[in-house]
Amino acid sequence: MKKCAAESLGTFWLVLGGCGSAVFAAQAGGDSNPLGLGYLGVSLAFGVAVATAAFAFGPVSGGHFNPAVSFGLWIAGRFPGRHLPAYVVAQVVGGLLAGALMWVIVTANPDFLSFGGAGTFATNGFGNFSPGGYPMEVAFLAEAVLTAVFLCVILAVTRPRATAGAAPLAIGAALALIHMISIPLTNTSVNPARSTAVAAFVGESAAYMPMHQLWLFWLAPCVGALAGALVYRYVNSERAEAA
Amino acid sequence: MKKCAAESLGTFWLVLGGCGSAVFAAQAGGDSNPLGLGYLGVSLAFGVAVATAAFAFGPVSGGHFNPAVSFGLWIAGRFPGRHLPAYVVAQVVGGLLAGALMWVIVTANPDFLSFGGAGTFATNGFGNFSPGGYPMEVAFLAEAVLTAVFLCVILAVTRPRATAGAAPLAIGAALALIHMISIPLTNTSVNPARSTAVAAFVGESAAYMPMHQLWLFWLAPCVGALAGALVYRYVNSERAEAA
Amino acid sequence: MKKCAAESLGTFWLVLGGCGSAVFAAQAGGDSNPLGLGYLGVSLAFGVAVATAAFAFGPVSGGHFNPAVSFGLWIAGRFPGRHLPAYVVAQVVGGLLAGALMWVIVTANPDFLSFGGAGTFATNGFGNFSPGGYPMEVAFLAEAVLTAVFLCVILAVTRPRATAGAAPLAIGAALALIHMISIPLTNTSVNPARSTAVAAFVGESAAYMPMHQLWLFWLAPCVGALAGALVYRYVNSERAEAA
Amino acid sequence: MKKCAAESLGTFWLVLGGCGSAVFAAQAGGDSNPLGLGYLGVSLAFGVAVATAAFAFGPVSGGHFNPAVSFGLWIAGRFPGRHLPAYVVAQVVGGLLAGALMWVIVTANPDFLSFGGAGTFATNGFGNFSPGGYPMEVAFLAEAVLTAVFLCVILAVTRPRATAGAAPLAIGAALALIHMISIPLTNTSVNPARSTAVAAFVGESAAYMPMHQLWLFWLAPCVGALAGALVYRYVNSERAEAA
Repeated sequence: MKKCAAESLGTFWLVLGGCGSAVFAAQAGGDSNPLGLGYLGVSLAFGVAVATAAFAFGPVSGGHFNPAVSFGLWIAGRFPGRHLPAYVVAQVVGGLLAGALMWVIVTANPDFLSFGGAGTFATNGFGNFSPGGYPMEVAFLAEAVLTAVFLCVILAVTRPRATAGAAPLAIGAALALIHMISIPLTNTSVNPARSTAVAAFVGESAAYMPMHQLWLFWLAPCVGALAGALVYRYVNSERAEAA
Repeated sequence: MKKCAAESLGTFWLVLGGCGSAVFAAQAGGDSNPLGLGYLGVSLAFGVAVATAAFAFGPVSGGHFNPAVSFGLWIAGRFPGRHLPAYVVAQVVGGLLAGALMWVIVTANPDFLSFGGAGTFATNGFGNFSPGGYPMEVAFLAEAVLTAVFLCVILAVTRPRATAGAAPLAIGAALALIHMISIPLTNTSVNPARSTAVAAFVGESAAYMPMHQLWLFWLAPCVGALAGALVYRYVNSERAEAA
Repeated sequence: MKKCAAESLGTFWLVLGGCGSAVFAAQAGGDSNPLGLGYLGVSLAFGVAVATAAFAFGPVSGGHFNPAVSFGLWIAGRFPGRHLPAYVVAQVVGGLLAGALMWVIVTANPDFLSFGGAGTFATNGFGNFSPGGYPMEVAFLAEAVLTAVFLCVILAVTRPRATAGAAPLAIGAALALIHMISIPLTNTSVNPARSTAVAAFVGESAAYMPMHQLWLFWLAPCVGALAGALVYRYVNSERAEAA
Repeated sequence: MKKCAAESLGTFWLVLGGCGSAVFAAQAGGDSNPLGLGYLGVSLAFGVAVATAAFAFGPVSGGHFNPAVSFGLWIAGRFPGRHLPAYVVAQVVGGLLAGALMWVIVTANPDFLSFGGAGTFATNGFGNFSPGGYPMEVAFLAEAVLTAVFLCVILAVTRPRATAGAAPLAIGAALALIHMISIPLTNTSVNPARSTAVAAFVGESAAYMPMHQLWLFWLAPCVGALAGALVYRYVNSERAEAA
């Protein structure tokens, strides 16, 4: 129960930090006075958000904050499958709470500036809803490959013999880099809870990335997490045998 | 006594580093030659300022540099209440010294460029004095929620069994992220001493965020610190019992 | 065999992270809406890419991901020469896979914006193909000097008595700084596998930096790695004797 | 002798990394295509440069790379005074080598863009030669105060009981923050060797910050280092007695 609360709180912070920075601050000042965070700032915000959430709540729950990560850790034998449904529900609920808080803040301000590309409210999408106009196939490929490498980093820095304390930093750095690569492609998900948290509020409006694209941001990260867990197991198998 | 000097020096550095970067360098070069730090640079400056202050003076005083943090640590049972008044006074004095130094520097330069949004001199505010025009309710909610998570991070990384040496980095990262989210909302306080340090110099002029909004930046961070201490205690209670 | 797979995967990630960020996101939004990463973001992406690759795959293979680094480590007596050819082939193959993935993504998007300076697709070059128009002599000097210092950092943080866990961070920081200095000069290589990975796809077109400049980005990093290994040995010789 | 070589190499890297980034990349792309590092990137470059120099050469020489730091460490009783002259000479020589390399690179490119404010080639200055037009008194005050805090950070993270391995990171973070605050004031020195390294090449030309202002960037950092060493001793005196 405390573990689920920790997962909810951590996912709340990940979505508020990453998506909140994107929504409130990415383009602050507008074109005439460009003080905003840009893609670099938003990428760093996601990285710092997951790292600080891991520092704050990781000791309680393990610090997944992401259904694809929980799934991949289960595949890799690092997380018991019977806890998977509760973790995923907790993550989605925590993310939705952050989405709701952001929605309350944004709707209180009539001057709110929308976030770049075709979408806004930090939603993920492809085709017309990709910031750079990339098609569905590219979106699927990118989300899967990037989640696969993310899992490899997570599995490596959380293995029993890893340097203590490096995990939050390394995982945050990896998530920041993933955003630096792929915000123009899909606005970067690699986390179904993060995608759901904001998509649920913007609905089906044509001005926003629609709910009916949300399936890709559940499927592709989970496929990638599966691939990442298998790749990690392969390259580490000899060492495991030797140890 | 040495502890109070350390708190004053650390808060001096936090305000000079964070607010000084904002005032001197956020918009340096102007629109025609945009070399300035922007919101990302100012956010990182606050984070690095608290981290380096914690490295330099934390071993002496514990490294609060923030009345809301001292208050929250007292609630959480990590700081003796009888020291609270002296710490808060020391923090406010240290912040005011930094504000005075910044005021001397700024008034020596007739070409000084004011800092974006409705305010300047890095003051905090809401309504017309919020950089993005956000109302009082949003300002209170944001300051309270962000301070609450800040306290959770601080309490986690300074618990006895935390990885040694990670605390300044993790706390700095959290403060940077808090600024990335909320500079457009309130110019980001989460620290009553930081708000007071700059508000005291700009006075009630219409061009600046006024002293009469300062109450919110004492009340909301303290409410948030209380909430953060209680949330942290809740999610960690089972582990404490088990340990 | 597993070591070669790890080198391939790490170099894949280094090229996808560093060059991918440059190609997809450096100029995202264009001039009218400058949200892109710029040179700072691309520099940080290369640094974070090598650091996270070292976290994920370094424990298996040592984490070179760069023929010049493997060569320099061999000169310094830290890596057995008989493994050098297999490592170099694995690094080049891994880099080419990342280049191929980037090419698939870019060609799927007709609106793709080219990357600044004279070149694009993150290729390295000199003369007309240098982002800032710097001549061949400067390119050779810069690549050699920067690789030499890179080797000194790597040799220092991977020596047996170095602080455990600091190596990926320090090496990533060094690679980021190397890019901050030299993107305008050569688009920064210091890594023959990275240069080959993107040059192989753009071919000899006049709009791109040509394959026939690729020799410099094999020769200069290797000359620099040799110099760095010798300099490191010189300044550390007394200590080695004393120990 | 090896210690002096290490100090020269480290100062070479500090100047090449920090000033080189400023000169080559701060304004790359120009106004029409603003890809350059800006003040944030240059600040981070100085921080990363000193951190990576400390990783690479610090184990040999202690990693000062700055006459004011060597002076302050001597005042604080951490460095033997008889080595001070040799260290200062080594630092100045290493810095001048970096300045010479930068001068060779810059003069090879006729399209070279000058660096913002009144100065260029990353020189330090005040009055007409301050990027933001700040007068001599402000320049002296800022350089002294910032060097004083810099010394406090250095003394704290290099004390015997400090967390091993945190020093390069903390010192780099402090130097980055110092630049974020004060590039607009003096182009930031806090290091006489760094100021001399670039001033020596631009000479007395009206377009550059002149040699005859160089005295301030020797005097003010040394005054600040003295103050920092005394402040550090004061706030730590009780603990030293107790220990």
